[in-house]
Amino acid sequence: MVYLTRRERFNAAHKLWVDDWDDEKNFAVFGKCANVNWHGHNYELFVTVKGTPDPMTGFVMDAKKLSKLIKKLVLDELDHRNLNLDVDFIPKKTQPTTENLVLSIWNRLEPHIEGCQLHCIKLYETENIFAEYYGE
Amino acid sequence: MVYLTRRERFNAAHKLWVDDWDDEKNFAVFGKCANVNWHGHNYELFVTVKGTPDPMTGFVMDAKKLSKLIKKLVLDELDHRNLNLDVDFIPKKTQPTTENLVLSIWNRLEPHIEGCQLHCIKLYETENIFAEYYGE
Amino acid sequence: MVYLTRRERFNAAHKLWVDDWDDEKNFAVFGKCANVNWHGHNYELFVTVKGTPDPMTGFVMDAKKLSKLIKKLVLDELDHRNLNLDVDFIPKKTQPTTENLVLSIWNRLEPHIEGCQLHCIKLYETENIFAEYYGE
Amino acid sequence: MVYLTRRERFNAAHKLWVDDWDDEKNFAVFGKCANVNWHGHNYELFVTVKGTPDPMTGFVMDAKKLSKLIKKLVLDELDHRNLNLDVDFIPKKTQPTTENLVLSIWNRLEPHIEGCQLHCIKLYETENIFAEYYGE
Amino acid sequence: MVYLTRRERFNAAHKLWVDDWDDEKNFAVFGKCANVNWHGHNYELFVTVKGTPDPMTGFVMDAKKLSKLIKKLVLDELDHRNLNLDVDFIPKKTQPTTENLVLSIWNRLEPHIEGCQLHCIKLYETENIFAEYYGE
Amino acid sequence: MVYLTRRERFNAAHKLWVDDWDDEKNFAVFGKCANVNWHGHNYELFVTVKGTPDPMTGFVMDAKKLSKLIKKLVLDELDHRNLNLDVDFIPKKTQPTTENLVLSIWNRLEPHIEGCQLHCIKLYETENIFAEYYGE
Repeated sequence: MVYLTRRERFNAAHKLWVDDWDDEKNFAVFGKCANVNWHGHNYELFVTVKGTPDPMTGFVMDAKKLSKLIKKLVLDELDHRNLNLDVDFIPKKTQPTTENLVLSIWNRLEPHIEGCQLHCIKLYETENIFAEYYGE
Repeated sequence: MVYLTRRERFNAAHKLWVDDWDDEKNFAVFGKCANVNWHGHNYELFVTVKGTPDPMTGFVMDAKKLSKLIKKLVLDELDHRNLNLDVDFIPKKTQPTTENLVLSIWNRLEPHIEGCQLHCIKLYETENIFAEYYGE
Repeated sequence: MVYLTRRERFNAAHKLWVDDWDDEKNFAVFGKCANVNWHGHNYELFVTVKGTPDPMTGFVMDAKKLSKLIKKLVLDELDHRNLNLDVDFIPKKTQPTTENLVLSIWNRLEPHIEGCQLHCIKLYETENIFAEYYGE
Repeated sequence: MVYLTRRERFNAAHKLWVDDWDDEKNFAVFGKCANVNWHGHNYELFVTVKGTPDPMTGFVMDAKKLSKLIKKLVLDELDHRNLNLDVDFIPKKTQPTTENLVLSIWNRLEPHIEGCQLHCIKLYETENIFAEYYGE
Repeated sequence: MVYLTRRERFNAAHKLWVDDWDDEKNFAVFGKCANVNWHGHNYELFVTVKGTPDPMTGFVMDAKKLSKLIKKLVLDELDHRNLNLDVDFIPKKTQPTTENLVLSIWNRLEPHIEGCQLHCIKLYETENIFAEYYGE
Repeated sequence: MVYLTRRERFNAAHKLWVDDWDDEKNFAVFGKCANVNWHGHNYELFVTVKGTPDPMTGFVMDAKKLSKLIKKLVLDELDHRNLNLDVDFIPKKTQPTTENLVLSIWNRLEPHIEGCQLHCIKLYETENIFAEYYGE
């Protein structure tokens, strides 16, 4: 079992805001992240798959194909978008925190990985904060 | 003459959009950067001052004081904000490109540097794009 | 189960030296790390917690609260300090190696993590050496 | 159980090419990586061992000794070499993909780790692609 | 005058070898870099242009157009190639050192920069070595 | 004129402390950096030389020779040392700030650069602070 990881990047706007709470509670809980006019990040995404290297190609999965799959399914929907407003596969009413984003990206990608298994979605929001999800 | 540089970071939303142009021209010129609902970045800011190290302290400028000055004048206004809507010191109708931001940040900081001179404002928008301004 | 990691940094002096050994043996075992007048590092600390994201906030743990906890319990005691002399929570006679530091930091932090679980303490001593501890 | 990781680097040429396939199939499968006259990479290698820190030295393994072992067994054979032609411990007819290289490096190093256990071989081929192997 | 920099990357094989010298002299001067079967690097290229930001777009130069120009003129010829054998715009008999490569890349790009000026070509060969050329 | 830069690293202890001042003034001016028992850093040093690439070798200066020179003259004296106590070429009574260190390292190296010219000494103290000196 060998693990192969591909890094991709996207830039997006978001805010953290619970509609059922008043302004005061939102700012108390989320601080600057609740700024009404949004803020944004350069997200750095690491997708890890696992499997046995093919005896002919030496690939667990062709890294170029993995990259194209991530671009089509994830980046084309998240890059230069607003994570609260623009993205169909992020459930509405769900806060676009790094923790919830790794869950959404896992669910988006997992059914399309063929010939090996999705192992981990890791997402950096800043150089100081990242989240990981391993499917359970 | 010794140069001292302090790195700071801020996260902000923006879009590139000329109000006098129609949608078609805006998307033709700015592409994804014109997304109506904004996108955002982790900006990395490098402020360089130059001068002679003080014979007692060995400081061109106390890096902690430089950091506090940048935080008060620049980060408190840009961090977790919308660069098109929320920032008084960025001229309205000016596109918040990396090139224009280094000019605005220079003009904001320069009058407040004491005991040495501001030498350069350098700003990373992504790991692949940055701009620099040296005051002329 | 989602994993959330927060990066923090501290700068400290230390040396590796066994009091029960003579100079010759200390230098034979520890080399330059036994320099009598100390040396030091920029340490980079990664604290990982795990849990279920809160359905309202989307947080496994508020990253700002995690950061404050690390600052209060760990950084305030380690940053700009001598790891052999100045830190109460590092057992005396224990070498302040990266391996032992992750154990001490785990023991220091673990009882204070609430609402989720501490998963990993990872510490970089240089860009080429780091240690990890998972609690067992 | 504490994990200790040492980073090393080497620069090498390689290409991906199956001798039993014709040119057309090789370029269809491997694209630019099949360039007849080779291409190359700055490889970044992370070797992780695990064990209990020695009560006197605080070492899982002396990081300098680990570094020397990696240099002698791995870097002296891979650095500034052609991975298809010059390296005895990479099986001929095996493609020198990142996935296969972590397997070869594991097999090369594992019998020589004493006093603790080899835990992981992780290898970056570019900043966007890396592979990991944990011994099974 | 504002400076705008775009980072690009390419992976290539090369060796340092003077045909007019015998093997002994080549290995004495170039060491491992003279390995007969080549070695290679992940090159990191920084192209800096300078000019006045356009009053409407805020661009010194559209960074996407700059990227496309670099890809067409430089990366398409260098990426996944052998710098000694495969690249028309590197003069034969010239050693493909980092110093000579920045000169070749400057000469290749400079005539095609329109609306602003090429300021600097900076090229990393490894994380420890880079060269810069400013056109004179 | 081409510029060639070599990165090196060293780890050292230091403190900022003016003997002619009392404790109160030292802590007021230098804060945590005045910790009596020292602290330390992973310093990252960039040495830049400039000249014309040799027509045969393509070298402004052999990067390996530059590295050896830096190791012998600078790193062997600074690495795993105390910058206040252990280093002959840092003037006593001079604070070992990043600004003063680039001056000392310039003066130490400059007379030994042959066949090209020393252009810049750049030194990172942390990822957020660095100083540069260009010889005047």
